[in-house]
Amino acid sequence: MKEFVLNIQYWLKGNDYAACIVPQADPHQSEYIEDYYKLRGFISGFTGSAGTLVITRDKAALFTDSRYHIQASIQLKDSGISLFKCGLPDVPTYSEWAASQSNGGKVAANAFLFSAKEWEKLSESINICNDNGFESVWKDRPALCASKIFIHDEKFSGESIKSKLQRVRDIMGKKNADIALICNLDDIAWLLNIRGADVEYNPVVRSYVAITPTRCLIFVDSNKIEQPVADYFRNNGIETADYGGIGAFIEGNKDKTVLLDKGNLNYGLFEKVKLCKDFIDFPLFISHLRAVKNTVEIEGYRSSMIKDGVVWVKFYKWFTESLKNNETISEISVMDKLRELKSVQKDFIDESFGTIAGYAEHGAIGHYAANAETDSKIEHKGFLVIDTGTHYLDGTTDTTRTMVCGSLSDDERHDYTLVLKGHIALGTAVFPKGTKGSQLDILARQYLWQSGMNYGHGTGHGVGHLLNVHEGYAWLRPSENNIGYEPWLTMTDEPGIYREGKYGIRIENTVLVKPYKKTDFGEFLTFEHLTIAPYAMSAIDVSMLTNDEKNFINNYNRNMCSTLSPYLTDEEFEFLKTIAYEI
Amino acid sequence: MKEFVLNIQYWLKGNDYAACIVPQADPHQSEYIEDYYKLRGFISGFTGSAGTLVITRDKAALFTDSRYHIQASIQLKDSGISLFKCGLPDVPTYSEWAASQSNGGKVAANAFLFSAKEWEKLSESINICNDNGFESVWKDRPALCASKIFIHDEKFSGESIKSKLQRVRDIMGKKNADIALICNLDDIAWLLNIRGADVEYNPVVRSYVAITPTRCLIFVDSNKIEQPVADYFRNNGIETADYGGIGAFIEGNKDKTVLLDKGNLNYGLFEKVKLCKDFIDFPLFISHLRAVKNTVEIEGYRSSMIKDGVVWVKFYKWFTESLKNNETISEISVMDKLRELKSVQKDFIDESFGTIAGYAEHGAIGHYAANAETDSKIEHKGFLVIDTGTHYLDGTTDTTRTMVCGSLSDDERHDYTLVLKGHIALGTAVFPKGTKGSQLDILARQYLWQSGMNYGHGTGHGVGHLLNVHEGYAWLRPSENNIGYEPWLTMTDEPGIYREGKYGIRIENTVLVKPYKKTDFGEFLTFEHLTIAPYAMSAIDVSMLTNDEKNFINNYNRNMCSTLSPYLTDEEFEFLKTIAYEI
Repeated sequence: MKEFVLNIQYWLKGNDYAACIVPQADPHQSEYIEDYYKLRGFISGFTGSAGTLVITRDKAALFTDSRYHIQASIQLKDSGISLFKCGLPDVPTYSEWAASQSNGGKVAANAFLFSAKEWEKLSESINICNDNGFESVWKDRPALCASKIFIHDEKFSGESIKSKLQRVRDIMGKKNADIALICNLDDIAWLLNIRGADVEYNPVVRSYVAITPTRCLIFVDSNKIEQPVADYFRNNGIETADYGGIGAFIEGNKDKTVLLDKGNLNYGLFEKVKLCKDFIDFPLFISHLRAVKNTVEIEGYRSSMIKDGVVWVKFYKWFTESLKNNETISEISVMDKLRELKSVQKDFIDESFGTIAGYAEHGAIGHYAANAETDSKIEHKGFLVIDTGTHYLDGTTDTTRTMVCGSLSDDERHDYTLVLKGHIALGTAVFPKGTKGSQLDILARQYLWQSGMNYGHGTGHGVGHLLNVHEGYAWLRPSENNIGYEPWLTMTDEPGIYREGKYGIRIENTVLVKPYKKTDFGEFLTFEHLTIAPYAMSAIDVSMLTNDEKNFINNYNRNMCSTLSPYLTDEEFEFLKTIAYEI
Repeated sequence: MKEFVLNIQYWLKGNDYAACIVPQADPHQSEYIEDYYKLRGFISGFTGSAGTLVITRDKAALFTDSRYHIQASIQLKDSGISLFKCGLPDVPTYSEWAASQSNGGKVAANAFLFSAKEWEKLSESINICNDNGFESVWKDRPALCASKIFIHDEKFSGESIKSKLQRVRDIMGKKNADIALICNLDDIAWLLNIRGADVEYNPVVRSYVAITPTRCLIFVDSNKIEQPVADYFRNNGIETADYGGIGAFIEGNKDKTVLLDKGNLNYGLFEKVKLCKDFIDFPLFISHLRAVKNTVEIEGYRSSMIKDGVVWVKFYKWFTESLKNNETISEISVMDKLRELKSVQKDFIDESFGTIAGYAEHGAIGHYAANAETDSKIEHKGFLVIDTGTHYLDGTTDTTRTMVCGSLSDDERHDYTLVLKGHIALGTAVFPKGTKGSQLDILARQYLWQSGMNYGHGTGHGVGHLLNVHEGYAWLRPSENNIGYEPWLTMTDEPGIYREGKYGIRIENTVLVKPYKKTDFGEFLTFEHLTIAPYAMSAIDVSMLTNDEKNFINNYNRNMCSTLSPYLTDEEFEFLKTIAYEI
């Protein structure tokens, strides 16, 4: 057994615990987290972004989902930690296992790393105690990130702090709440028009916010605040307090009613809120405001997509010519080229996630990240999946294109066309306001299903505005999430197919939910495709397309050419016309 | 205010209640109920099948859904009872209203008329008390139905009592339960291979069943049991006890663990179960066994559909010739003709619900039932919606066809074709095992949505086997019900469109979920269309159909002709060929 595990087991025995639970989480329910919080990875050696470790006095087990079954089994080899492959038949969840192993005995966990909702659910079956003493085994823990805050100017965000605060206070008034507590980092960045760099690719600021009818406090490390931001806060009436001061603030307001989101607020703070007069649980009350984009944000997305579109055309030309000239290019040189082309675009901030460039069989691996050992040379055949996105000051992009590298098999062409048909069926859907992602999802899968195929990921996710590329509000997945669609959400449309050991295909546009028409039957919505990037025309089996599908492609290509032409050289524009032809 | 309401308000004051709740329900959570239980209709005058009455000391209010807004507003006129149109914005639910009006005061209700789940939910916001004293205002209450039980022979049901009981006992063993309590009337009829006629069109027997590892008891009025059924029960080891004895039975088993379904078991009995050692809530544990049909049942459906198919052809011919000969036919004569044709078919038991025959604007009214006052003469234009079904000993059918009565407008033809396209898209879907109805529903709506249209009902429901035509297991609706589809479920596929004051269109087949193929990506399912009845070919705008859709129709017509030809006269077969032509 690993030394760190043994140390924790020693601690369990010394402190009368039957077990402890170590999630991959921060105190803000973030999907991606700072290194400081990667205790589970430190103890277990498993580096995936999802998975929970449970340590009992004589056992240790890691629970992770299908995306990470292979990676975890490699990384946990000889660790003494058992792997539970969640999602497979008869595999218990970590909480079921922890409940059966602890058998009523005390189980330690850091309550700040669980949402109030999760912790209460765990408490139903586990004698769970808020104690993070076991974390002390991590001696050389990385420091918390000290990135500086920057202001996201209203010319990009489209709404002042004052207006956003007023909208929150209107909700508080309706709910008769004295204080609103905000824990989600995207929500805070949006609300105060600030950004940071605390988590790789996620321009957020580690902080809490509390709002009263007259005050707004941000709890944040003071070393993140430089003079211009201090002035900005002061001018907008935002009070600053230390990050750790949020607990004392709640304790000082015991006579108040608190508005919160139990799915976002960590249990460590919720435990304190429970001592207040009352609380009101209102799921996603800020996230909803944030997900519905305003006209300035929407114009910003459109502008960002033009910049990314120019990048895609330049990249496509470079890629095509490199292959033609028999130059050696690889997954990593593709990633580098894309970053180079993006970084010279106006208002470039960062990539919105690490580009995935997966050639041939690498395209079939979920979350593939090329490194020096795995880097594949691109040959004159098959597919290269490229999933890439950019943060600009005026917006965030997320696009996947499957590039044709040379000759294709009939299966490859057939599969590409089925994925494209699903992408178009979803991307041209018309649906009543209030339709949910779980209803729309099937539109993208129907043609694959008819051929006995499927993909194991969701079909789409919300896209933040210079914020997390996985926005976490209106998912588009088979599973229900109870969020009805409404105009001005930004989503992705990204079906795929993955043939293990052979190839992968994925096609992804960022789309905008917008009004279609009002009739006697209600208000209908549709999608506008924001992404501007060439599809792989030569991979399409045109005989499999309906006229409506051909019209979609032809219109898309025409719009792409006319929109990008002012930003391309003559040579680039001529190249674009050769790859965006009519069918 | 109505006299009965005043009497109840007098009772409320005398017994210290703030309010009482009167649902439309029986003790078995049945969708359709015996007259004995129609107290809400008696008090209010509103006769719809869904709706709840709440009476406070000085007010009375009825809450019903959109199907009944118009009917309720007519029937409640001058009653002093306010109508709350549920589903419209800002209209409270009956429980929200009862909570706000009673304001912590005691609220009376008959706990036997609520599922345990519903009652517990009500208890969260209402001080609800099990007291049905107010029911005494109903002086001339109808008697409970005394219909006789009949045996559903194994040659039709395909599985013996013994085998079914063994399957239930296997579940009990796995769950470590000592007793299984069954409250749902369909479940009991299925389990014991018995049928009755306690509810119009629903061949069920008012009863409870309790199963232990060695005993099976049916709690039922003894006057329902004639000698052959008594012998049948004795031969199968089924003990009989009085209907009212179920409570005492539970009280006599306080040391036992009880398996039950809190969504089905009424709270009156659940209150007694809570005094037992323990209980296990297992939703739909019998309903699931019942919904998955065996090969004998499936063959029975096929045979029933041939009989109904013959009825449809004969009816269609009569209808066409009557119109041609300028004979006067009306909605009621259509209903009568269908019943007459069905009743001579082999093993006919009853219709499976009251036939809906809605001509022109009547076709747009949900749950339209023609009567002497409303009966419309069929003219030489427009649509007639016919929704009809039959109980045979070997199966139950449910079919809707929209008949062309003469000339059609372009809108009528366009709408018919859109409904048909949705019906085909759903009816030819391929989907992974475990897909839910809420995912599939959109396939039937997508083309209507593209034209800014929609329909307010679900797209499909389970169909019982000589049991309730609304089976109540795997619904196919926009709302989630968490039931994954598996082979051998029987469902309906019935999109529609309703233009108020003009016309309605609905097309419905009963379909069977069956295996399609297994691949590396899992197990895929599809539908077999069981219903055999002519579509309205002359209502189709063929230019709006894809080749796949045309192929579906042509194959359907070919199969219909070849399947029905042995059962038709030459003249009938020639007629069928003229209406089931190739497109």
